[in-house]
This record gives sequence, structure tokens and C-alpha cells, in this order.
Amino acid sequence: MLARLGSHHIAAVAHRVVHGGAKYFDPVRVDAAVLADLKAYIPLAPLHQPFALEAIEALLATAPGLPQVACFDTAFHHTLPDVEKMLPLPYGAWERGLRRYGFHGLSYEFMSVALAERYGDAARGRTIVAHLGSGASLCALQGLRSVATTMGFSALDGLMMGTRCGALDPGAVLYLMEIEKLTLEQVGHVLYHESGLLGLSGVSSDPRVLLQQEAGNERVQAALALYVRRIVREIGAMAAVLGGLDMLVFTAGIGEHNAVLRERICRELAFLGVDLQADANATHAPRISSAASRVTVAVEPTNEEWVAAWRTASLIGRPCH
Amino acid sequence: MLARLGSHHIAAVAHRVVHGGAKYFDPVRVDAAVLADLKAYIPLAPLHQPFALEAIEALLATAPGLPQVACFDTAFHHTLPDVEKMLPLPYGAWERGLRRYGFHGLSYEFMSVALAERYGDAARGRTIVAHLGSGASLCALQGLRSVATTMGFSALDGLMMGTRCGALDPGAVLYLMEIEKLTLEQVGHVLYHESGLLGLSGVSSDPRVLLQQEAGNERVQAALALYVRRIVREIGAMAAVLGGLDMLVFTAGIGEHNAVLRERICRELAFLGVDLQADANATHAPRISSAASRVTVAVEPTNEEWVAAWRTASLIGRPCH
Repeated sequence: MLARLGSHHIAAVAHRVVHGGAKYFDPVRVDAAVLADLKAYIPLAPLHQPFALEAIEALLATAPGLPQVACFDTAFHHTLPDVEKMLPLPYGAWERGLRRYGFHGLSYEFMSVALAERYGDAARGRTIVAHLGSGASLCALQGLRSVATTMGFSALDGLMMGTRCGALDPGAVLYLMEIEKLTLEQVGHVLYHESGLLGLSGVSSDPRVLLQQEAGNERVQAALALYVRRIVREIGAMAAVLGGLDMLVFTAGIGEHNAVLRERICRELAFLGVDLQADANATHAPRISSAASRVTVAVEPTNEEWVAAWRTASLIGRPCH
Repeated sequence: MLARLGSHHIAAVAHRVVHGGAKYFDPVRVDAAVLADLKAYIPLAPLHQPFALEAIEALLATAPGLPQVACFDTAFHHTLPDVEKMLPLPYGAWERGLRRYGFHGLSYEFMSVALAERYGDAARGRTIVAHLGSGASLCALQGLRSVATTMGFSALDGLMMGTRCGALDPGAVLYLMEIEKLTLEQVGHVLYHESGLLGLSGVSSDPRVLLQQEAGNERVQAALALYVRRIVREIGAMAAVLGGLDMLVFTAGIGEHNAVLRERICRELAFLGVDLQADANATHAPRISSAASRVTVAVEPTNEEWVAAWRTASLIGRPCH
């Protein structure tokens, strides 16, 4: 029953699984052994990993003949050089799996396909994709492969997000526990759910709401200013890794739809050769840079589900429509 | 006795105190009330603040008439805009003093004087100073004032250092405690004393030693590669804050004396207009950029003691020789 929808036949189920650890770079059909591996990665992504695995496990029990395929958000970043995977911790941490894996990989993989289709070789140079949603990260691509990314070991790293802090002075974490006597669980809750745009503004994690309320509200202004500043700083850092910038791409909810924030970010990037075309930006056109801009600035909708379906269809040998 | 050295008279004692909190921007003569304030900042700099205060307290008791003047490493950064002082935490943290204060301020203040003397108006543009010692940070200066810096709330932030991690995915801190069951004290020890160059290489916190041993030693290579990469990334981030780069200055032990690391850093910065002159770099000349370089690259020895003495002399109305 589960495998039939009217006259259609379900050939396989594609699952977005956040963490493939250091072992899984390609989509994999999940059996008991794979499931055990993926459960071992739960501590690496405690907020995301268990839910995906629960769904897989339920479907394996209900429809044992139906292929369940796991597609990993870490996988696209397996091309990162070790220097970008390494944390500045004792070497034993690296051996124990404390590495910068990178996330939003299905989105970046989709972008690598979509940008090649739309821009051809022009997309194969020094490209930064800004995946700005409720979670957010940047990926630096060279030849459409990931060479650096801002979100590393956990989903707390890198940019400031809707409710997550992003990269943080570790001394602040120690201070919250040692001096302010928060428990480990409380600190985790603060950093994942009470920080970022929501925590600073006290109003909302949604930039649309904040932009409506920023006039006269200093906390909202401060939250948006820090949100933009940290994106600008990290674009500078990614440009340094790439040795300059040819293309800057905005995607995901905020990246695709928020022209005001795109303008505030790009205004700070003139030194890299970024120059927006205001009307194109206001209408979310595919190309929002001016004719004079040395950097092509693009808006490109992402589609993580399409990547998961496409890779799953390839794996099981069925075409994807 | 204490106030006399042969025929010389001690007019005052200048103390380098790491933390002046949100209250002290200028050197201050320490009395009981000031001392109480400074003790309240011990939690903000537990490794550094107590020792300076012990010395002040001892001298106040021994020589009550002798002015004891505190000069703060945070003070130079009071010109940082709020967006650079703010952590991406709930707003209450800001009100409780969890802010990016910035450090190495006496060094950056010295540089602001020395660069103005040597380069005049050329130093007043978009300047990045790289203070690379066993502790390390970058400061972005505009008009010779601090507008951004990498070391923020604690001495753990920003660049990777000899034994300190620098900025870190906070999820890694949570993982070390939650999954690997380290205590708070153990995590603090790992991040302050067992990470960075020493932790990754397993050999030394001193880049001179590591450069001698890197041939054939992959861990040493990895440690040096990450050290350089993180400096390059953060120079990119600071350049984004400044909107480009006119001058890059190396100072402190490593910055002043390590031509190999300066070359490895600058090699990655050609996109910003950096071009080294090899002989000048090898001999640690004041100006190490080529004639064609769009960015002036300088080596300038720092002198934190001189700044502290000079500011103290000004405060008590005596000339400083």
C-alpha cells in the first residue's frame, strides 16, 4: 500500500540526513549496518540526526522491500582540504571525529548544478554561495567544488542565525557556565534557541519582521547590523581563501527573497568588485549585479529535495522525472 | 627605598592591566575604589587580571605615596562600534558585560604612534596590524583608531595561537563536555593550554621549532597550515570591515622576526594588492612590500612598556624620557 500512489509506483525513498560522518560521501541505501553507523553520528548532530533516522527505521519496518536512501548534508564538503576540516584543538580531537564537516551540502550541490546550467564556465571560478535561511552558512567553491565553508563541526558554527549564535569566543561559553552558573543543558539551549536575531532583538528570528520594526528600536537595529556584519566578515574570509571573487550567489529563504538585506550586504563589498543593479535586486532577478560589476551577483532558488531525489534515482538505477 | 634608584626618583609605577571593563578607557591612578572595580573584572580575564592586581596591591601597601597607574589592554578598543563589540547572544548578556572588549591594546596604541611617525598620513587609511606573539590578534584601524579586532571577550578568541584555540565552533565545546565528559575545568585547560600550534603539532607552540621540523612531519605541517590559514581568513574579514586594505603591519615576536610565516601569509593576499619584496622581508626591513604593491606591508617592533610609561607620565604630569 505504502509503495503505491494511484497508478504511480514508489521506487525508493530519499532521506535528507544531516550527518554522514567521515565515512559517507555519496548517497547510500540504508540497511541495518548503515543505520548503526548513522546512529553513531547522533552526538555530532543531536538536533537533526535522530529524526531522520526514526523515519528511515519506521519505513524499513513497514516496507522492508522499499529502498531507503540516505543523502547527506555533509557529503558535498568532502572535497574540503584538511586545513579547512581541522579544528584548532589537540590532534586527538581530529582522530576522534571532531572535524569541520560542513553542512547545507544538498543545497550547495543543487547550486553547483543550477549555476553550471545557467552560467556555464563563468560559475566555475571563485564563487561564494550564501545559503541564508533560518540556518545559514557560506560555501566557497572553486570549479564548483567546496573548498571552504563557515558551518563546521556543528550547526552552531559560522554565521549568526535566526536563533543560533554562530561561531563564538569559547571563553564566552566557559564564562556562562563558570561565572553565571548555567548548566551544560542551559548553555546548549541558549546557544541553539535563544541567541542570534531573536536573542539580540527580543522580537523575532525572522528578518522580515525585524525590518518592519527597526525604526526606533535599537535592539532590532543592533541585531540586523550584527547579522549583516558577520556575513560581510565571512564573505571577506571566504574571498581570502579563494584569492578573490568572481561570483556571489544568494539562496534559501532570506537569500532568495530579502532584497533589503542583500543590498546591505553587497554595499559593504564594493572593494571586491561587487556592484548591485537596484531594480534587478528589488525583483529578485537571477542576475542582480550591474553591467559594471566585476563580480556576478546572482539569486538562485535552491532545491534540496530535487538533489536528494536525483541522487537516489541514480543510485537505484531509475530515471528521475 | 623603593622609590629611589641611585640618584633617580621613581615618580610613579605603570602597570599593564588586561581588563578595564566597560568603564576604564584611559590610564587611571589606582586607589581602593578603583582596585575594587578592577577586581570585579577578574572573571573576564581570570588568567591575567589577578597577577597585575596583586602587584598593584603590594606596592600600594609598601609605598602608599607612590602613584600606581593601571594601563588597560582593552582601552584602545573603546572606539569599536557597537556592532563589533556585540556577541551574538541574548541581549541580557550585553548588559551583563559579555562584550567583545578587544585585547593587545597597548601594542596597538604603540603602533598607532609609531606608524604615524614613520608613514604619516599613509598610515591613517585602511590599516591592519597583526600582533603575532604567543598570544595573537589582528586589529583593523581607520584613521589609526580601532574599528575591528579578532580577540573579543576573552583571550581565547580569534586567531589560533601557540597553545590557545582561538575562535571555535561552540558546538565543539558542548561536545567535549556532553559526549567526551570533560569537566569545565578540563575544557578550559584544553582550550587555553593544550590547543593551537602545540596541540595540533604535538611538538611545540613555537613556530620557529615547527618550521625546523615540518619536513616529513604531517602534524607539524597541518599545524602551521591552519595557523596561516586562520590569519589569512581573518585578514580577509578585517579587509571587508575596512572596505579594502592600504597597509598591513606585522608586529610582536612572530610578526617581527618570522620572515617565512610573513611570506606564507602574504602570498595568499595578492587579491588585496599585497606583494612582498623578498630581500626586505628576509631582513625584517621596516617596509617589506615591493614598489608595485598596492598595499604597504610593514614590520614594526611594538613596545607596550613604552606606551604604559608614556601614558602614566602624562597622567601624573611628569615628562617621560
